[in-house]
Amino acid sequence: MTNKITELLKVQYPVIQGGMIWNSGWRLASAVSNSGGLGLIGSGSMYPDVHEENVKKCQQATDKPFGVNLPMLYPDIDKHIETIIKYKVPVVFTSAGNPKTWTEILKKEGITVVHVVSSVKFALKAQEAGVDAVVAEGFEAGGHNGREETTTFCLIPNVKRHIDVPLIAAGGIATGSQIAAAMVLGADGVQLGSRFAATHESSSHLNYKNRIVQAGEGDTILTLKELGPVRMMKTEFYNQVVEAYQNCATKEELAELLGRARPKKGMFEGDLTVGELQSGQSSALIDEIKSVQQVFDDLIDEIRSLKFDFLKVFEN
Amino acid sequence: MTNKITELLKVQYPVIQGGMIWNSGWRLASAVSNSGGLGLIGSGSMYPDVHEENVKKCQQATDKPFGVNLPMLYPDIDKHIETIIKYKVPVVFTSAGNPKTWTEILKKEGITVVHVVSSVKFALKAQEAGVDAVVAEGFEAGGHNGREETTTFCLIPNVKRHIDVPLIAAGGIATGSQIAAAMVLGADGVQLGSRFAATHESSSHLNYKNRIVQAGEGDTILTLKELGPVRMMKTEFYNQVVEAYQNCATKEELAELLGRARPKKGMFEGDLTVGELQSGQSSALIDEIKSVQQVFDDLIDEIRSLKFDFLKVFEN
Repeated sequence: MTNKITELLKVQYPVIQGGMIWNSGWRLASAVSNSGGLGLIGSGSMYPDVHEENVKKCQQATDKPFGVNLPMLYPDIDKHIETIIKYKVPVVFTSAGNPKTWTEILKKEGITVVHVVSSVKFALKAQEAGVDAVVAEGFEAGGHNGREETTTFCLIPNVKRHIDVPLIAAGGIATGSQIAAAMVLGADGVQLGSRFAATHESSSHLNYKNRIVQAGEGDTILTLKELGPVRMMKTEFYNQVVEAYQNCATKEELAELLGRARPKKGMFEGDLTVGELQSGQSSALIDEIKSVQQVFDDLIDEIRSLKFDFLKVFEN
Repeated sequence: MTNKITELLKVQYPVIQGGMIWNSGWRLASAVSNSGGLGLIGSGSMYPDVHEENVKKCQQATDKPFGVNLPMLYPDIDKHIETIIKYKVPVVFTSAGNPKTWTEILKKEGITVVHVVSSVKFALKAQEAGVDAVVAEGFEAGGHNGREETTTFCLIPNVKRHIDVPLIAAGGIATGSQIAAAMVLGADGVQLGSRFAATHESSSHLNYKNRIVQAGEGDTILTLKELGPVRMMKTEFYNQVVEAYQNCATKEELAELLGRARPKKGMFEGDLTVGELQSGQSSALIDEIKSVQQVFDDLIDEIRSLKFDFLKVFEN
């Protein structure tokens, strides 16, 4: 059995691992690809030489397809694209920018291009730019996010009825029943972030992984909308953000408070107080650090065990 | 075929109409009950005599079960409860307050009690208070909402694994595929608000119904969190709210700006500029004012036509 996404990406399962900064090195990406999904290297936190090393090592660690996530606002994007072309990386997920900028160039090289959006409007623009598929990411997703705050539950069916290219759902997904629900809503595949951040193979710090596992409902928040909305854990740093808002901070003051390197401090160095811990609402559904293979085994088992008898109540 | 919710509420379909202020009079509630769902009278915007009249007329208009939605923060709650008991209304949905206050009193009268929550924590409190079922309502819902901003997609599976009483999903639901998805996530039934607000039988103003139909993605926003989070359309009034925030308005200044009677002005009198138009993100999926019977026919048709072949890709 195949579907639009497994055919497009040449994978066994339509399950993609989000290319998260400070989490998604070659170990995570190759493990996901080896388990039957599509692993993505998160190039957004990598210098060009680190990125090249990760692509090389990923190729050595798996003979399955894998991809690179390319946030288009990063300064080293030209060099990242050189590496992608040089090593014939088969798939690129672009985000945080105009899909017209790179889609044609990448596709000419035979690369499959997928673009991440947060609304119907941007999904249509991506389709127009010639992408092969779209990721529609809801408000519940960790990290950088859309301004309209449309949730996965409302975003997916609306994007579905407006586009023709294959659709990947993202935002809030960590369990098998959620994967099935996203596909009932119209998705052809799913992308999971936080669930793969809390695996042994993720390159992030153990403190951060443990924080995801411990997180309960309401522990993440979408904030700093003036600078670019980001969903993160409510940490000591977040308390300072709240205080800044109470003091009617300007955009410049917020930028100064945010400073630089907080995501690295939090996710890579494990500083849970001053670091920015990007994480999704799905953290509340993640209770254990697992191996990538275990994540896949558990998700597939859960999906296979789902019953749809409840629908008989609508045959009345 | 029955399930936990159809058995508990004695209805054909596990589909409940939200008891929305200025929308949910006897015409809407009785039409929903006559179509096989559970109609709710929205008592929150009714004086005691208006409420009593609506209960009486609803009883005359349907021989099926119906209910009353009772926001516990309203001043006339004692009189509303007198009416409910006097007319033997079979079901009460309580919200916006402590479920311990009224559950026991209502249940002693043989009334089925359902409580609306926005988190696992409050769901557990409601279960402890002895309610018969819980509505878990996500961030995408219109009107008053929870502080933690948990979306339907993340809320339902988490509440499901923590409670034993039947679970009704609410927030963002307007289509058949969304009903099926909510049940895949673990819900035993669903509650729809905006979809029923935009029906001929809703008592709200035609201008407001048309506004829901015209709404696109991003047209609603959760705001006024300091006063009590509410999701509404982005109107001229909302522009004033944005300006107030930019000027670092205090809670008192926000309360003064909000004033009184804006929901009535917007939803009942049809003033789309100064009124507060409570509406959910599902508005973007609602394209036509329909009769209640048409809403049911279309939802049921859509659910019956869903295919679950996509799950075969996980049998690989």
